Amino acid sequence: MLMSLLTLLRLSFLTVMVIIWKGDKLIDGVPETLDMLRSKGKRLVFVTNNSTKSRKQYGKKFETLGLTVTEEEIFASSFAAAAYLKSIDFPKDKKVYVVGEDGILKELELAGFQYLGGPEDGGKKIELKPGFLMEHDKDVGAVVVGFDRYFNYYKVQYGTLCIRENPGCLFIATNRDAVTHLTDAQEWAGGGSMVGAFVGSTQREPLVVGKPSTFMMDYLANKFGIQKSQICMVGDRLDTDILFGQNGGCKTLLVLSGVTSLSMLQSPNNSIQPDFYTNKISDFLSLKAAAV
Amino acid sequence: MLMSLLTLLRLSFLTVMVIIWKGDKLIDGVPETLDMLRSKGKRLVFVTNNSTKSRKQYGKKFETLGLTVTEEEIFASSFAAAAYLKSIDFPKDKKVYVVGEDGILKELELAGFQYLGGPEDGGKKIELKPGFLMEHDKDVGAVVVGFDRYFNYYKVQYGTLCIRENPGCLFIATNRDAVTHLTDAQEWAGGGSMVGAFVGSTQREPLVVGKPSTFMMDYLANKFGIQKSQICMVGDRLDTDILFGQNGGCKTLLVLSGVTSLSMLQSPNNSIQPDFYTNKISDFLSLKAAAV
Repeated sequence: MLMSLLTLLRLSFLTVMVIIWKGDKLIDGVPETLDMLRSKGKRLVFVTNNSTKSRKQYGKKFETLGLTVTEEEIFASSFAAAAYLKSIDFPKDKKVYVVGEDGILKELELAGFQYLGGPEDGGKKIELKPGFLMEHDKDVGAVVVGFDRYFNYYKVQYGTLCIRENPGCLFIATNRDAVTHLTDAQEWAGGGSMVGAFVGSTQREPLVVGKPSTFMMDYLANKFGIQKSQICMVGDRLDTDILFGQNGGCKTLLVLSGVTSLSMLQSPNNSIQPDFYTNKISDFLSLKAAAV
Repeated sequence: MLMSLLTLLRLSFLTVMVIIWKGDKLIDGVPETLDMLRSKGKRLVFVTNNSTKSRKQYGKKFETLGLTVTEEEIFASSFAAAAYLKSIDFPKDKKVYVVGEDGILKELELAGFQYLGGPEDGGKKIELKPGFLMEHDKDVGAVVVGFDRYFNYYKVQYGTLCIRENPGCLFIATNRDAVTHLTDAQEWAGGGSMVGAFVGSTQREPLVVGKPSTFMMDYLANKFGIQKSQICMVGDRLDTDILFGQNGGCKTLLVLSGVTSLSMLQSPNNSIQPDFYTNKISDFLSLKAAAV
């Protein structure tokens, strides 16, 4: 195990990690491990499909947990949506209709895009009287759909009109996760439900910018001017994190401290094999003693 | 054309029609045609994927349009949901969670089933505080999803919990229509959007009781003790009405008074051919003169 992690440390330039807290608690040994990786010259990026917060808002969460993480090190799917629009030179005179929460709005604003929708449409209702017609903005050129606790029919109809009737209008999903862990007490219907509603009404498939799409890996490789094989994806889920890393052409490290056990990894029913695995992320610390 | 309709009249016992109004106006010649078909001993059934009304509520709409139609002649997908549950002997001590409008509730009540949800959950909100958990009724054995203008995240999460956590819980869709014509001024996101949300969060496919599922045709053939080939499906859409009739093993009659023109029917790009076609439903009236 030690040799493997050492090899990994030598190979990778950039380490991409899934968010390293559970509910409101940090996983043991995380701060020291991050310091150690940084001291070896590794760049760190934290990824989450959660789009309810912006990078800045996530930074504050890291801070309250006692971690110093810069905005640049955070890659939430809210940011990914704005980064994607930038990457395709989405026209600044077009607008984005948002089905989602504050994080997406904040990231669009930072990126200089015009938007409408978001939480303020959460209280809107429609009345289906004879002859009633919902007007929609013909300048909307993209609909971004993410998790939205204020989801309602008004938004479904407004976004559907934009996608169906505005020529060339994009349909972008932050993620299609079936469930999400908004509280640690139960699993919550995830962004996949909001996205599914629009798939149902538009009969179009979205462009996904969060996991498991490889947009993020392409973006990071491009930003840092590296090969994707120099990126290591660290996570605790085989069918999401590890598969996502593999799809992106990255090295992968499975940590056994989360949902995947060693026996699940080694089961003949499992077809997803990470490049490396270890018990917990803080195993990197034991390399301090070894000759790196 | 006359000979064809005559053949059809001799062949079919039961005529299934899509709803024969547009907005709030009846299509010309409809009342006389229905009288004529009835006088020839034909049974009539009117079908709609719209689940917002019950059969009784639809009966009133027919009445305001000056048509006398009995409840038994109306087959809305709200009724189909209740009829399906009856057909599988859904236990009376189990409950149905409804994502949809009043029509579904009324039909479930008439069929003697216990239900919860529906419009009254439209005002409910959730607060995603740390540790917050949504309780759900463990006795829910089926979630019925139809068009719902009061759709919200509370319902998505409640229905998802039932489907994912209650063993054996059914996931029933009244229909998966992308759009619906709730007002004649524009197309509205249809039941497919509500159903799509649950497909996204549960990663399960629903059992559909409305068109284009053949449940209704099986139900009608069974109820009247006839073969499905004795049923004629009449409609104006090739890819929904006519395909639906064909899938159900019925005869099909396309009327050219709606969305499909003769050139569309005869286009080499069209692969769906009805058994019969005619300009408008009232062409049946010209058979009066012919020797039937």
